[in-house]
Amino acid sequence: MLTVDYAARRSIVEPARLRRFFGARSIAVVGASPSSSWARNLLNSLELGGGVKDVRFVHPKYDEVFGKPTVPTLRDLTEPVDMAYIMVGSNRVDGILADAAAARIKNAVVLASGYGETGADGRDRQHRLARSAVEFDLTVMGPNTIGFINAVDGVAPWAVATETAPVAGPVGAVFESGSMARATYQFAQAHGVGSTLWASVGNSAVLTSLDVLDYLIEDDNTRAVALFLETVREPDRLFALGRKALEAGKPIVVYKAGRSEEGMRSAMAHTGAMATDDAVVDAAFRQAGMVRVESIEELVATAGVFGYSPRLPRGRRMGVVTSSGGGCNIIADLAAVNGLALPAWQQDTSARLAAHLPEFASVLNPLDTTGFGHARARPRPTKAEDDLMEIAVEDAGIDFMFSMMTPLPDERPADPAFIESRMGIIGEIVTAAPVPVFLSSNTCLDVSPYARSLLAQNDLFLLPGVDLAVTALGHVARWVEQRDALAAGTPDAADPPAAASAPAAGPAAGTWAEDEGRALLTAAGVPVVPARLVTSAAEAAAAAAEFGGPVAMKICSRAIAHKSDIGGVLLGVADADAAETAYGTILARVAREVPAADVRGVLVSPMREPGQELLVGVTVDATFGPVLAVGLGGVWVEVMKDTSLRVLPVDAREVRRMLAELKGAALLHGARGGRAADLDALSEAVVAISRAALSVGPGLDTLEVNPLRVNGDRVEALDVLVTTTAREDS
Amino acid sequence: MLTVDYAARRSIVEPARLRRFFGARSIAVVGASPSSSWARNLLNSLELGGGVKDVRFVHPKYDEVFGKPTVPTLRDLTEPVDMAYIMVGSNRVDGILADAAAARIKNAVVLASGYGETGADGRDRQHRLARSAVEFDLTVMGPNTIGFINAVDGVAPWAVATETAPVAGPVGAVFESGSMARATYQFAQAHGVGSTLWASVGNSAVLTSLDVLDYLIEDDNTRAVALFLETVREPDRLFALGRKALEAGKPIVVYKAGRSEEGMRSAMAHTGAMATDDAVVDAAFRQAGMVRVESIEELVATAGVFGYSPRLPRGRRMGVVTSSGGGCNIIADLAAVNGLALPAWQQDTSARLAAHLPEFASVLNPLDTTGFGHARARPRPTKAEDDLMEIAVEDAGIDFMFSMMTPLPDERPADPAFIESRMGIIGEIVTAAPVPVFLSSNTCLDVSPYARSLLAQNDLFLLPGVDLAVTALGHVARWVEQRDALAAGTPDAADPPAAASAPAAGPAAGTWAEDEGRALLTAAGVPVVPARLVTSAAEAAAAAAEFGGPVAMKICSRAIAHKSDIGGVLLGVADADAAETAYGTILARVAREVPAADVRGVLVSPMREPGQELLVGVTVDATFGPVLAVGLGGVWVEVMKDTSLRVLPVDAREVRRMLAELKGAALLHGARGGRAADLDALSEAVVAISRAALSVGPGLDTLEVNPLRVNGDRVEALDVLVTTTAREDS
Repeated sequence: MLTVDYAARRSIVEPARLRRFFGARSIAVVGASPSSSWARNLLNSLELGGGVKDVRFVHPKYDEVFGKPTVPTLRDLTEPVDMAYIMVGSNRVDGILADAAAARIKNAVVLASGYGETGADGRDRQHRLARSAVEFDLTVMGPNTIGFINAVDGVAPWAVATETAPVAGPVGAVFESGSMARATYQFAQAHGVGSTLWASVGNSAVLTSLDVLDYLIEDDNTRAVALFLETVREPDRLFALGRKALEAGKPIVVYKAGRSEEGMRSAMAHTGAMATDDAVVDAAFRQAGMVRVESIEELVATAGVFGYSPRLPRGRRMGVVTSSGGGCNIIADLAAVNGLALPAWQQDTSARLAAHLPEFASVLNPLDTTGFGHARARPRPTKAEDDLMEIAVEDAGIDFMFSMMTPLPDERPADPAFIESRMGIIGEIVTAAPVPVFLSSNTCLDVSPYARSLLAQNDLFLLPGVDLAVTALGHVARWVEQRDALAAGTPDAADPPAAASAPAAGPAAGTWAEDEGRALLTAAGVPVVPARLVTSAAEAAAAAAEFGGPVAMKICSRAIAHKSDIGGVLLGVADADAAETAYGTILARVAREVPAADVRGVLVSPMREPGQELLVGVTVDATFGPVLAVGLGGVWVEVMKDTSLRVLPVDAREVRRMLAELKGAALLHGARGGRAADLDALSEAVVAISRAALSVGPGLDTLEVNPLRVNGDRVEALDVLVTTTAREDS
Repeated sequence: MLTVDYAARRSIVEPARLRRFFGARSIAVVGASPSSSWARNLLNSLELGGGVKDVRFVHPKYDEVFGKPTVPTLRDLTEPVDMAYIMVGSNRVDGILADAAAARIKNAVVLASGYGETGADGRDRQHRLARSAVEFDLTVMGPNTIGFINAVDGVAPWAVATETAPVAGPVGAVFESGSMARATYQFAQAHGVGSTLWASVGNSAVLTSLDVLDYLIEDDNTRAVALFLETVREPDRLFALGRKALEAGKPIVVYKAGRSEEGMRSAMAHTGAMATDDAVVDAAFRQAGMVRVESIEELVATAGVFGYSPRLPRGRRMGVVTSSGGGCNIIADLAAVNGLALPAWQQDTSARLAAHLPEFASVLNPLDTTGFGHARARPRPTKAEDDLMEIAVEDAGIDFMFSMMTPLPDERPADPAFIESRMGIIGEIVTAAPVPVFLSSNTCLDVSPYARSLLAQNDLFLLPGVDLAVTALGHVARWVEQRDALAAGTPDAADPPAAASAPAAGPAAGTWAEDEGRALLTAAGVPVVPARLVTSAAEAAAAAAEFGGPVAMKICSRAIAHKSDIGGVLLGVADADAAETAYGTILARVAREVPAADVRGVLVSPMREPGQELLVGVTVDATFGPVLAVGLGGVWVEVMKDTSLRVLPVDAREVRRMLAELKGAALLHGARGGRAADLDALSEAVVAISRAALSVGPGLDTLEVNPLRVNGDRVEALDVLVTTTAREDS
């Protein structure tokens, strides 16, 4: 961790403070030499932004740069400035920060690289910088950052090439990669996605992406947030901010690489991040109520549609009108992939649509208006697709309308009357519609300035191509559901359920004997198959007799984690006589295979009829802490890797969702002739297992119930393995 | 089918004839009224194209249109023209075609809609049009088409809005949707993907997408083909053209909607296509050696990179150099998703790269050059990423190089010396590199005219954003492998293996008794578990005694397809005595459940020890005919729907590929403690099953072996169900 902790820096990164940071109206540029392309780009961006009228130059060597006079140091400024943009090499930054403090400057951007990314010396330098910032009460962005663009106020200290003035809009964006911040900014601009703030946090020595996220959640102009993460730090804060954003009704759309092993390795190399299974990251984002996307283009499209939509749909039922038959098929496929429904039009809608269509036309959803109406007389300057959309938006069976539009002209036509009137009418249709209406182009083409003006004048937003459009709409529908589900309440991450009153004690480090694990489960309220721990053949026989019917017998020792591997398990032991013999057999095998084992006895328990077996495990992630995994047993886990994960704690509703996510979920509903599982009982048992794991405390390494057997409403843990490790409480 | 068959129209659609069609230098525009926006767009496109100097106008009412004189009919033309572009309503087209024939015109484009898409009358009209075309020896594109753009010769009878002159390039494209042809054309133009021909075939009454495909395969200027299909007609021809394209070394990239049930339903509504399972379509494209893509953008990017790459990689090993650390992580993820490998640099490459990097830098693949070298003195106008790429392309462990480039300027800078020299050097590096080099932008932004000129002047192609780029490169690598595999030989679709000498005869329509199915398999060389068909309890006992050990007993009757459901199967019958009793039990159950059943007897066969079970089935697809499905038994097929499909015939190599595609393939290699299957023996058995199915002939409905049991090198069909149906030989 190369930042000082949040408590120490809180006062210099909290939202109120960042409002002043991003609103700087006067900037001193320190160390800009006339030959620096960074400096040239910075000045160009500031000028295009237009909100910073007061730019001073500080340079010890040049009297003048870019035609402007300089002072030798920040201490020599005659009037205070809001911000220092520091362009000196890393070896000189410390001194400049001291100068800034002396000049009572409260905000600084540090461009220099040569810090945490460059080995031990750089890391020391970065620690020093962070400590100085706290000491000087100085909000520092960077080091190794290109800066930010505040499009609302035109404050754009952004040291890479830009060609046009920033466009203000509803999306706030924060990036942990400068080059991707720049690339994404270009893409957003080209697609008419305007922003409140576009920030690249660089090495995050002081100001982190989560600090900016917190600011954006509080910022009134920001309606949706785009987040580009390279690593997740402060996971508890991530959850807290996720909750805060949900309460504020602001969707957070996040891109994070590291999905694959290759990507994770690459990210670890670049960021020093800890190895966190991407599936855990995925679960964490979902639990935090954030939308995870798969590409930069999807990040922009999704944040854009959230930001520009005054209304969000109530559900997944999509109505579609488009003038492309080929487009209809594409949209239908995309709807299926993205979990959107295409209900048939209601009868009255069908009738009204049919009245405007040729007799032979099928009135389907998606509705293809191709060719129809090109020759029709129209009372107003519209296309058939517009008139039909106006009817279709009133359908009572849809939650929202989507239209892939006929391409807009790139240039203002010689006679713009038709297109300009038409766009006005479309704007009115969209505003008046009882459901939200979303529009897209055919493909992901840049939107020309003229087309952008047509859209903006009529409060319309054009999603970039049908593929990204329907993908983004799928995210919108899922986010709405997720928001509602989370609003209905899940346990607060900051407040884990109380540990069981008397947590069973196993060894502080190492493998627990199974009876110790069973006691832990029982204390937490997990239903466990009955068992007797016996220490003689006679006791074994007695236990078998007591249970009646065949029994399972298992060696019980802290020294033996994998009991079957050494022959320490006998299943289907028929009766008391057999149990008496089996006791000796097991002990003899153990004596041969693990002679040093400290044996606590043999567990005898009744055999259970077959049922659906699950594996329920809790492991400890380096970033997120205890993580629950639930999967179906056998091939499902071993070959299919079919498990569902959640960062703990969870409640039973969340476990129901986990079970529903499994590819083999049908087996729990009685597929293949099995009994349908009582999902309530099953979910409660899984929650109790997670409670048992948390009750172990910070020493937990893994807790694995394998199998948890379910047969109708009978749920039982048949075996449990607990391991602990000597670990600092984090 | 709304076209006349290929044999009848062959002479008017064969490649040589289409060369003349697409090369028309004089065009008569028939029926263009001055107020028609179609006509205005057509004339604008022709003018932008520039290759048609001779445009005449034919109109019975106006003496003049668009400032040009008209003649009343085609018969009144004083000189012959190469093509008629017919813009009259569908009710007048027949007469115009006759006029064209009289005027000895050989080529026509028909814009009108109101044909096959509009019900029974329209379908009649379309049949009539097709018959006239054949009769008049007239090549007709359409009806319901916007036309085509031949960018090489500047021949662009294209009746929708265009704003710039067509750019010639290596990609030939053919579309079954006019609106998507137009949208895709715009996207291709914006990304510098030039074309030989861009054709929209409309309703394909005469000229179909496959005819144009055939032409493009023969066209010397076309190096890659983009194909947008709404339906697959002439499947045999699709395979034949796929083979022809592979032999010509021309990749075919295909987009076809209808992946989902919703998309298929939409496509059926628009095209009248038959219901073909998309998984079969998918298999067919793969067998035809075609690359299937998921979006329009992917179609353009993939066809573009195939077209513009003078060299294709030998394999999947990718070297990456980029100046974005964030980009490295993204690329690593995308490589994993697209099956590309990122090998570590070879030792000598690492050493040479390290010499140009700071001491602390890790020399990884992907190589991040961020920040490094910005301050380095350079002997030539390059960026660090260029110099490092020049070294890395020589790595002996990679098959190709990929670089996500720093953004190019949109406008020519005031001082273009740096960027223009730099691009020249990059061009030299790419040309001299021992492996192919692929470049992309960061995101899918349009490429500005200036950037396009920088690229074109140096024979460079820029893939549209890293996401589409790596996806396209994955397709390239797979296509190369597929080409090599197919070149190694698969059975020719036109030449199915000879049917077994004496195909066993079951009923011509209905369910076959199991013994009939077994005979069919045996005749085709499928290993089948031994069995005796017995007709008395005593024979049953004798058969059981002969086999020794427990036996399986199954009722054998054409009337009973699902034997277990009525208690017609007893497994694990212990010995001869038990078999004697079991015989009576089975017959009694059958007499109760299916009293009318004509029983042939009971099949007795030895029980087999457990092994891995597969399901091998052949069904008949409405479009593609017999299709083979292979899956693992049990949950794999029932819950996971994990099957691999191929259009028949297949050979053993292809079956090996099918088995490798299964999600549970690990089970065949001995996962979960099973014996590894002898994949050669297994594949041969599957091929024999497919042979058995084909030997049934056109009456085949389904043949299902369930299970085919494999245990090491022992492969046996344990059960078989054959059904036939009265069907015309297609």
